Formats: sequence, structure tokens, C-alpha cells
Amino acid sequence: MKLLEERILRDGKVYPGEVLKVGGFLNHLIDDGLLEEIGKDIYAHFRDKNVNKLITIEASGIAIACYAARHFHAPVLFAKKSKTANISSDCYTTEVVSYTHGGKSTVFVEKEYLRAGDRVLIIDDFLAHGEAMRGLIELVGQAGAVLVGCAAAIEKGFQGGGDALRAKGVDLYSLAVIDSMDEGKIVFREQD
Amino acid sequence: MKLLEERILRDGKVYPGEVLKVGGFLNHLIDDGLLEEIGKDIYAHFRDKNVNKLITIEASGIAIACYAARHFHAPVLFAKKSKTANISSDCYTTEVVSYTHGGKSTVFVEKEYLRAGDRVLIIDDFLAHGEAMRGLIELVGQAGAVLVGCAAAIEKGFQGGGDALRAKGVDLYSLAVIDSMDEGKIVFREQD
Repeated sequence: MKLLEERILRDGKVYPGEVLKVGGFLNHLIDDGLLEEIGKDIYAHFRDKNVNKLITIEASGIAIACYAARHFHAPVLFAKKSKTANISSDCYTTEVVSYTHGGKSTVFVEKEYLRAGDRVLIIDDFLAHGEAMRGLIELVGQAGAVLVGCAAAIEKGFQGGGDALRAKGVDLYSLAVIDSMDEGKIVFREQD
Repeated sequence: MKLLEERILRDGKVYPGEVLKVGGFLNHLIDDGLLEEIGKDIYAHFRDKNVNKLITIEASGIAIACYAARHFHAPVLFAKKSKTANISSDCYTTEVVSYTHGGKSTVFVEKEYLRAGDRVLIIDDFLAHGEAMRGLIELVGQAGAVLVGCAAAIEKGFQGGGDALRAKGVDLYSLAVIDSMDEGKIVFREQD
């Protein structure tokens, strides 16, 4: 998606340790106009797949999933990272390593909100090593739901998580794939 | 907002300890159609106030803020609870007690995303004791930004946080105010 690539080049910041900061428009301060276009673009890719539920993981995936949900007319389920007083004990659960946060966390969705009949699109802001996506795919599998595909706003292609999913046959759509950012220079993968 | 009150009565569940569970439509599985109406309703209340930024707190407030943002054509800033590799050290910070999660957490926003000139509407899913709102108001104050008002989808009126904010002169709009839920019976406050 050209608009997102241009925005990354303009406002993204590359830090040591292969960290790309896009907090100014994607995952801390969320640019409403950009997110509208991201939501439309995700819908355009999966519109014919009879998606009836979008799944993401707290916190940064929620905004993108909501902007896509309007077009699918589908609810958004977000996997949670901490149990609260209002959570049922009847959950699908998996562990996810976060390279950004450091360490592992247990993520879960309540069973009553994810059903065997669901046709699920997984959405997240970033795809790097693919740990969050892998965890969400596992939750979909535990429920016996159908994984229609995955969408990520930004894929760090050089970290391999995206291509590993594609090799497994997952219909993964990343709006911007970064193939390298050596010395702070961001190079995008050519996409159709 | 009648639609939300009806949905709470239909699908909300009251548990011991004054816990109201609305995970089936508001803060775990998010009902796209309902959120559209909530977003419109918040906008209708604050449309003439020149809001240029919406602030919420991760995770459950994000969806509501995004559905409102479309109408304000304003960005959404969400306060974060954990520092990650891509976060600047230059933050406005406060501590918030969570009765649902148990314990205190430090929440923050990066200074560059909240400015003295901003006219801010704070949005959250729940308002109970008012701790999260109080924390967000404090962050707005630290930045020297203008607090235009606060919106909560559901206010647990009997826990007093909302009325305390009103007594301080905050323009607080709660779409549904629950005055009691003794023995599982939900009673809403009459609103204009």
C-alpha cells in the first residue's frame, strides 16, 4: 500500500536493534485518516472470503481491526494478556514470545466468543518473527474455526515470520513489507 | 443511549463483587454495529467543542475511541501500560489503580504526541471509581493541553467516580449510567 509505505518513510524512525518506530501514526498516536485507508485495503484483499470474525491481540492491533471491521460488518475479538475479574475461566490459551516487550506472555480468548463455525481473519499492526500471529492461529485452531487469512500493516520481511507463514499456505497480506533497514535505510519489498 | 442500555440488559452479566461483564459486545468481542452507534453518539455530544485529539487507555478503550475518531476526524492517542523497545523515555506518566485487574499500574504517553495546544476528549469503556479517567486527566494536565470532556460507554454510577468528576466541573458524558445492580437487577439512571 503506497500510502503506508510513504508514511513509514516520512515519519517512521529506525533505531538500533532493528526497531522501527511508527508510534506517531500507527500504534501509539493513531492517525484516523491513514487507518481508514488501511481498513479499506485489508477489506479489498479479503472481501470475497466470507470473513465473519476478525481476531487481533491487545493492544496495538485493536485499532486496525476496528477500522477493517466496518467494511466486513464483522465483530472484532481481541486476545487478552491479563486475566481480570470479569473473565471466564473457560478460555483458549497459548503462549506468545514478544521481542518488543521482552519475555513471554499468556494470551487467551474466551471460548464462547470463538466458535467452530467462524471464518476468521487475523489482523495485527506488526509481523516480525510471527510469534503473535502464530499464537492467534493456534487459538483459531483450538476453537476448530476456519483461518481465512492474516493481515499485518507492517511486515519486517527480513525477520522471516511472514515468509514462514506463507510457506505453510497461510493467505498472509502485509500492506508494507520491509526487506531491510540497514543503516536506517528502509527498503520495501515489491508487491503486486 | 437506549441501544446500549438494551444491550446491557440483554447480554450483560452481573457477577458477585459488583462485576458487570459485557465481554460479548463491548470489551472482548466487539460488536461492530453497536460501536458504530456509540461512536456517533459520543460525537453528537461533543461535536461543537473543537476536539482535535482523543485519548484513551489500553486496551478496551481503544475500540470505542476509534469508532468516535472517524466523526471527529481526529487522531487517537492511547496511554500505554508497559514500556517496549520502541518507546521514547520522554513521557508523561502517572499511576492508576485498577480494581478489575487488581493492583497499580504506571501508564504513560510519549510527550511528542500530546501538546499544549491540544483540545482533548478522553474516552473509555468503563467508568467506575474513576481511576483511569483521573490518570488520563492528569496526563492531559501535565502536557498543558485543554480537557474538553470525558466520555464513558458505561458508568457504574454507584461507585461514585463519575459524580466526583462532575462535581469538579468535568463535562462527563456516559452513554449508560448504572445506579444499582443489587441482586443482579440493573437499574439505569434517567438521563436527558
